[in-house]
Amino acid sequence: MNFVEKRIISDGKIGEGDVLKVDGFLNHQVDVNFLNEIGREFYKIYSDCGVNKIITIEASGIGIACITAQFFNVPVVFAKKAKTVNIYGDVYKAKAESYTHKGAYDIIMSKEFIHKGDRVLIIDDFLAKGNALKALIKLVEDANAEIAGVGIVIEKAYQGGGEYVRSLGIKVESLARIAAMSINEGIVFC
Amino acid sequence: MNFVEKRIISDGKIGEGDVLKVDGFLNHQVDVNFLNEIGREFYKIYSDCGVNKIITIEASGIGIACITAQFFNVPVVFAKKAKTVNIYGDVYKAKAESYTHKGAYDIIMSKEFIHKGDRVLIIDDFLAKGNALKALIKLVEDANAEIAGVGIVIEKAYQGGGEYVRSLGIKVESLARIAAMSINEGIVFC
Repeated sequence: MNFVEKRIISDGKIGEGDVLKVDGFLNHQVDVNFLNEIGREFYKIYSDCGVNKIITIEASGIGIACITAQFFNVPVVFAKKAKTVNIYGDVYKAKAESYTHKGAYDIIMSKEFIHKGDRVLIIDDFLAKGNALKALIKLVEDANAEIAGVGIVIEKAYQGGGEYVRSLGIKVESLARIAAMSINEGIVFC
Repeated sequence: MNFVEKRIISDGKIGEGDVLKVDGFLNHQVDVNFLNEIGREFYKIYSDCGVNKIITIEASGIGIACITAQFFNVPVVFAKKAKTVNIYGDVYKAKAESYTHKGAYDIIMSKEFIHKGDRVLIIDDFLAKGNALKALIKLVEDANAEIAGVGIVIEKAYQGGGEYVRSLGIKVESLARIAAMSINEGIVFC
């Protein structure tokens, strides 16, 4: 097991409804040293890919993206989940289904911050059905930017989102890939 | 002018409705090197205050809090804006008015991650009327934890939130304090 898988086993909890709770170290309380290890790992994978921007989606992707961006020395742009009065002007927009928030929502990114010629690394904490990721990919494509790759901390491989995105020819690297998970049987990694 | 004030002048934009847009470097696109300077500055101010946890609120506080936490070598806990199915169990809860999102919302923090004996540093990008900050303070007080201090990147001093929180005896340090701001006259720092 690698360091992410070990941490999931030691500190993660499986909840009702196919929920993997990692809120003690990843998406509510955040272990910043752990994020640093994650950032270093993503840098190992993508350091030669010409990444000039990291994009993610609020909220739990932001910390991971910012720490990872230190290794690449590039800016982060995070897609926002709703239009606020602080964003005006032209935005790229995509609809995402949410598993954790129930129902669809729009994500937006200002056209100021993503352009043709950008080579972006997409970072997120989870990949399950891939709804948030598909919406981020749409934003990048609408901007005529290129996707250098996707870096995911935890992929629920059995939910098919990763498989689908890889079938588009996009490189997706997940630090932990879960093949199966249940309260009784625990977690099986790929 | 310090580095935050300089950056606001060079890259910030004043919008309609008393909005200071800093989404090119702070809260949509994020300049991670700039966040590092901010983190170092907060560490200079609060390194001797026994901080064992940094707390903030999603979304735009998270990147700043995570980068700052590297200097303190402590975890971050970010309050969430709505109850998701990924959080269960007991939470502390407080209501916050939102200027940018219009209307009130609940913020929550799991009781697992804040306790009596914690000395927390509260970090956020903006302080205006102080609604988010007051809600965070309530969470910390409900947990019987102590507030070592508050670190803010940009305070709109003329909106009174900082003055109110300081009147409670809480140390609030803002890296840029705006005394007045208008589209025609620009920005005046305190």
